[in-house]
Amino acid sequence: MGVLSNFFSPKSVAIVGASNSPGKIGHAIVKNVMESGYTGKILPVNPKEQEIMGLQAFPGIKDISEEVEMAVISVPAARVLNVAKECGKAGVKNLVVITAGFKEVGKEGLDMEKQLLATCREYGMHMLGPNCLGMMDTHMQLNTSFAKVFPIKGNIAFFSQSGAMMVAILDWSRSVGLGFSKVVSLGNKADLSEIDFIEEAAEDPYTRVILCYIEDVSDGKRFLEVVGNATRKKPVIILKSGTSQAGAQAASSHTGALAGSDLAYETAFRQCGVIRAKNMTELFDLAAAFSKCSLPAGDKVAIITNSGGPGIIATDNVESNGLRMARFQKETLEVLRSGLPPESGIYNPVDVLGDAKTDRYSFALEKVCADPNTDVVMLLLCHAATTEPIETGRALIEMKETYPDKTFFASYMGGEGLKEGATLLAENGVPCYTFPEPAISSVNHMVKYRRYIDSPPDESGLDYQDVDKKAVKAIFYDVLKDNRLVLLGSEAAEVARAYGIPAAPVALATTPDEAVEEAEKIGYPVVLKVASPKILHKTDVGGVKVGLDSPEAVRKGFLEIMESVHRFMPQAVVYGVEVNKMMPRGTELIIGMTKDIQFGPMIACGLGGIYVNLLKDVAFRLARGLTRKEIESMLAETKSYSLLRGYRGSEPQDINAVVDAVGRVARLALDFPEITELDVNPVFVYPSGLSALDVKITISIS
Amino acid sequence: MGVLSNFFSPKSVAIVGASNSPGKIGHAIVKNVMESGYTGKILPVNPKEQEIMGLQAFPGIKDISEEVEMAVISVPAARVLNVAKECGKAGVKNLVVITAGFKEVGKEGLDMEKQLLATCREYGMHMLGPNCLGMMDTHMQLNTSFAKVFPIKGNIAFFSQSGAMMVAILDWSRSVGLGFSKVVSLGNKADLSEIDFIEEAAEDPYTRVILCYIEDVSDGKRFLEVVGNATRKKPVIILKSGTSQAGAQAASSHTGALAGSDLAYETAFRQCGVIRAKNMTELFDLAAAFSKCSLPAGDKVAIITNSGGPGIIATDNVESNGLRMARFQKETLEVLRSGLPPESGIYNPVDVLGDAKTDRYSFALEKVCADPNTDVVMLLLCHAATTEPIETGRALIEMKETYPDKTFFASYMGGEGLKEGATLLAENGVPCYTFPEPAISSVNHMVKYRRYIDSPPDESGLDYQDVDKKAVKAIFYDVLKDNRLVLLGSEAAEVARAYGIPAAPVALATTPDEAVEEAEKIGYPVVLKVASPKILHKTDVGGVKVGLDSPEAVRKGFLEIMESVHRFMPQAVVYGVEVNKMMPRGTELIIGMTKDIQFGPMIACGLGGIYVNLLKDVAFRLARGLTRKEIESMLAETKSYSLLRGYRGSEPQDINAVVDAVGRVARLALDFPEITELDVNPVFVYPSGLSALDVKITISIS
Repeated sequence: MGVLSNFFSPKSVAIVGASNSPGKIGHAIVKNVMESGYTGKILPVNPKEQEIMGLQAFPGIKDISEEVEMAVISVPAARVLNVAKECGKAGVKNLVVITAGFKEVGKEGLDMEKQLLATCREYGMHMLGPNCLGMMDTHMQLNTSFAKVFPIKGNIAFFSQSGAMMVAILDWSRSVGLGFSKVVSLGNKADLSEIDFIEEAAEDPYTRVILCYIEDVSDGKRFLEVVGNATRKKPVIILKSGTSQAGAQAASSHTGALAGSDLAYETAFRQCGVIRAKNMTELFDLAAAFSKCSLPAGDKVAIITNSGGPGIIATDNVESNGLRMARFQKETLEVLRSGLPPESGIYNPVDVLGDAKTDRYSFALEKVCADPNTDVVMLLLCHAATTEPIETGRALIEMKETYPDKTFFASYMGGEGLKEGATLLAENGVPCYTFPEPAISSVNHMVKYRRYIDSPPDESGLDYQDVDKKAVKAIFYDVLKDNRLVLLGSEAAEVARAYGIPAAPVALATTPDEAVEEAEKIGYPVVLKVASPKILHKTDVGGVKVGLDSPEAVRKGFLEIMESVHRFMPQAVVYGVEVNKMMPRGTELIIGMTKDIQFGPMIACGLGGIYVNLLKDVAFRLARGLTRKEIESMLAETKSYSLLRGYRGSEPQDINAVVDAVGRVARLALDFPEITELDVNPVFVYPSGLSALDVKITISIS
Repeated sequence: MGVLSNFFSPKSVAIVGASNSPGKIGHAIVKNVMESGYTGKILPVNPKEQEIMGLQAFPGIKDISEEVEMAVISVPAARVLNVAKECGKAGVKNLVVITAGFKEVGKEGLDMEKQLLATCREYGMHMLGPNCLGMMDTHMQLNTSFAKVFPIKGNIAFFSQSGAMMVAILDWSRSVGLGFSKVVSLGNKADLSEIDFIEEAAEDPYTRVILCYIEDVSDGKRFLEVVGNATRKKPVIILKSGTSQAGAQAASSHTGALAGSDLAYETAFRQCGVIRAKNMTELFDLAAAFSKCSLPAGDKVAIITNSGGPGIIATDNVESNGLRMARFQKETLEVLRSGLPPESGIYNPVDVLGDAKTDRYSFALEKVCADPNTDVVMLLLCHAATTEPIETGRALIEMKETYPDKTFFASYMGGEGLKEGATLLAENGVPCYTFPEPAISSVNHMVKYRRYIDSPPDESGLDYQDVDKKAVKAIFYDVLKDNRLVLLGSEAAEVARAYGIPAAPVALATTPDEAVEEAEKIGYPVVLKVASPKILHKTDVGGVKVGLDSPEAVRKGFLEIMESVHRFMPQAVVYGVEVNKMMPRGTELIIGMTKDIQFGPMIACGLGGIYVNLLKDVAFRLARGLTRKEIESMLAETKSYSLLRGYRGSEPQDINAVVDAVGRVARLALDFPEITELDVNPVFVYPSGLSALDVKITISIS
């Protein structure tokens, strides 16, 4: 039993809005519940009927004497709230609200939906929908939907934010032999969402693969946590649409979903181990693979083919997917050489030639499976005069049973004549595709997933003990008191230092004398910059002086800056001049933060300096759940990483210091959600340590 | 009639090796020729038979009194050469050599193949094969293959370097309703290759789309020329395998093909307008699209759907493919609003809702087609209770006839119940896919192809009148006389200048006095570099002095370099010291050349300086057929292009000078194939003009 208690296995189901008229939704639901083989109580509710499809009908929920565990509601939208209240009073545990006309139709609907949710919360009920098609469970044998199709029983749990698409997919899945454990139409996700169902399915003994089609995620924080746990137990494959500007608009008008930026989703999915399908075809190609066969032990693929061309194509694909071609042992090659015709290819791919019957495939299969260097066996079969698709399929299935540690795939290329063989394979745990490419791509995803679950949980979190929250609060307080939201450079540097980020020395001076005093403290040479939150492009107004190496130069610089700034921007409030230590040049990085509406702060790190926008050599991670290991992998994604490691003979830079600084920036962003903008650019990295030269922080108090 | 004269329409076909025994290849061929509906003379040749399958058999080719236009040969390899000679003597025009055992089995086979080719050349015969499955023409009704399947008549010409795959594909194509005009198994391509068949098919009135599976190209130069012409007439879609290291090995062992680097193929295909399919699925998705419907007039796509989810997915795909969503006129929106249910989406994608029958689809179709902003109409249909796949298909076909200028696609999502509707669409010129993504991707390729053929032929070739070939030859002559292959910097700069590439001043000095003399001529400051072809890393041995601005500094620099080099590399031959003008810094580019075995010189241009290998911001083009326009598009592919155009307010650089320099480097590489290596790095580009600072040239005389 999963976390949603008995959502999928209620002892009794009431259908409110049940009907005797074929064509009505309330009729289709009763019919589906009855025909699904459901063994609990079916309780139709309709005040105008005595009996519905042979079952006793009740005027209302309150008139049912026994306990109702689930109510499926398909009355008009205006009446749903009252029905929900009745259900609450009667102690119903779960609602499935089929009725449409809520959030998706505008303000009024949204208000109704909020009231509906409040009612559910009040009575401790869970709710699926509104505006959904219902749910199906092939193992509990319950179908509360009004869809015409019911899936084949299987091990795929499928949660879809699009109802019509879900039905089309179920229809299509029957023709390709994909089986499902649970199917849920998510609707408006007012209460229960994909997050809850993923959590549930991760514990469900009948589910092996979790498949989702979603248009948005409503609670990014919980998604990361729950799905991050689920993926450690079962593969979670998600097709997320609304990635484009235009698509997000369509999504928004469709279900009222507020689609986040795709970068945030991409990053979130990766960080919590979700396998992201590029398109519908891939979603189901992957579902077939994960559903049917075991995870490969490794990445070494052996190919057996009866035609050179597809063998080469498959080999290309093995390489482009980052997998390896198995290198057979000497003994394997010898025995293949002696047992196959002389024209055969015995090196991987093994080419058993166009006239191969089952015996030759069998022979090659046996030898290749026995080779310890083979993890995955891919059988390619082009339909030719002599091919025996069924017998060869049987031979492959036999090998699968003999070698349970190896993973088997097939590609049967040809027409109707191959269908029976392909189906036989699919039914016996060997995914069979028409062309080799999706098979290899699926192997790749399985190998990666295997590595993911085999890797120990990453505990290198960002729990820095030496951060000084109080100091940061004190600075923010002063900034607010000064009626500002943008921090001065000296303030931002202080915030950074409070979190252990080594900001270069910088101090505010309001007079030439103060400037000299600070410069003496900091050490020459120094850089002077006008301190004024309103002035964004300081150089343009003569607000910057670099390389000042004496008290005279500092004094002169101070006065020149003030004069120039007052001339260019007489109206700007000027706080003085910042005295910055001129740091030795290092490898130039940028560390920055942007905020995603669903997933919170997202940290960027990469090549800094003037080319940052041109070269866009920057990697992103969500701050939430970030670890030191993940920061390392983030850095390794950038080309700048080669610079850090010591490019072309130059000295390696302090990568640990970078990891630490990125982690502390993330910690700061998480601890202070009021920080709306945060940029450290440039960061100079040295062979030992680093220096944050320019820290920019903006806060927002709402 | 195409360029291959009557290859596909011979008046008579002799089958040498014809047989009465079922199971023999010579039997299958006679049977196929007879059953294909061929109306010419069928002439079986077999010395042991009087009659084969009811036809008179001849002992040899020479015994046939009438003219033989084509001979299909399936005798054992050892006898093929003699049969070919007989054919030559008898005046046969075309041979189809089915027999295997030639190049693909090793040295001996290769020799036989060479002799066979020589014989064909001697008698002016064309040859398909050897080691092939034969060819089929559905319109001429001729099948000289021994394959069991014959394709549906259609407009796709398919040329395949893999025989077994070809058969599998034909088998599969019947099940999805793809029709072919010609199908050719290319075999070893000793004489006729895909190039000849593409040239022929481009003229063939029955062919609309040219499809190829190839593992290599044997004549890169001719490929570029012929295929470049063909793509202006018909789309040429190619799946090229052997792209990976391992795949190339497999290709090599399989047909003896020497696969070129994939970059060269990628570049060649783009430059001659070939549409490259990523995989087998895409090859046939594209074939279906180009075969069935007209090219879109533009890139504006309108989507009509009965389910929100797929509508969003399709919209995402429109954007990710670089297409545009059609923006409907006000009138269209108004009429859609008034005619569709209130919950419908009337903005593109138009959502006619899950309960839409044909009438609603029809209404939306009519309005959307009438909108002048629609180029492509994509109908999405999810199988639901009320959908009418056949009737809706008919409505779509009707629209297609009413609006011949618009292009129509469909995606029918669901199971067996949709099959009849989908087939109806496919048969009436509307490509219909299961999922929307391949449909949109196909639209993208069609839009791009349309733009390609609509663009005027690019005449901006590299015919520079001011290049001095003689000067280059003279320099190369001196280098060879000096027993070298690597040019000194001063020599390479002279070669560049002879081709109009503005190389920075550089001169060789053998004494300190000469160095001062040259420096005075060139102007201070100068850079001194040791001149020794053996020393690759000059800085490492103290062989470089920069910023020398007086005669004393030059004299001192000369002596220090000599001393240091003699100490570090006492054995290196030193020619003296090169005096280089120290040029003002400009935007740093690299222009380079590599050679591809099939396609010749390939020119690279992009970001120069020390980060060239780190950032790899370099674009490539083949020198052959390169134009000034193409060079511009090449530059535009690099990120450095933003720098050239004036990045972040900086002055724009002289892009024309860069185009000119790249063109002249390409011209030089084409005119002198003996140049094996050529690198100009860095090139400093200025607001007006540029300067090639370091030219490296290596030649090879074999």
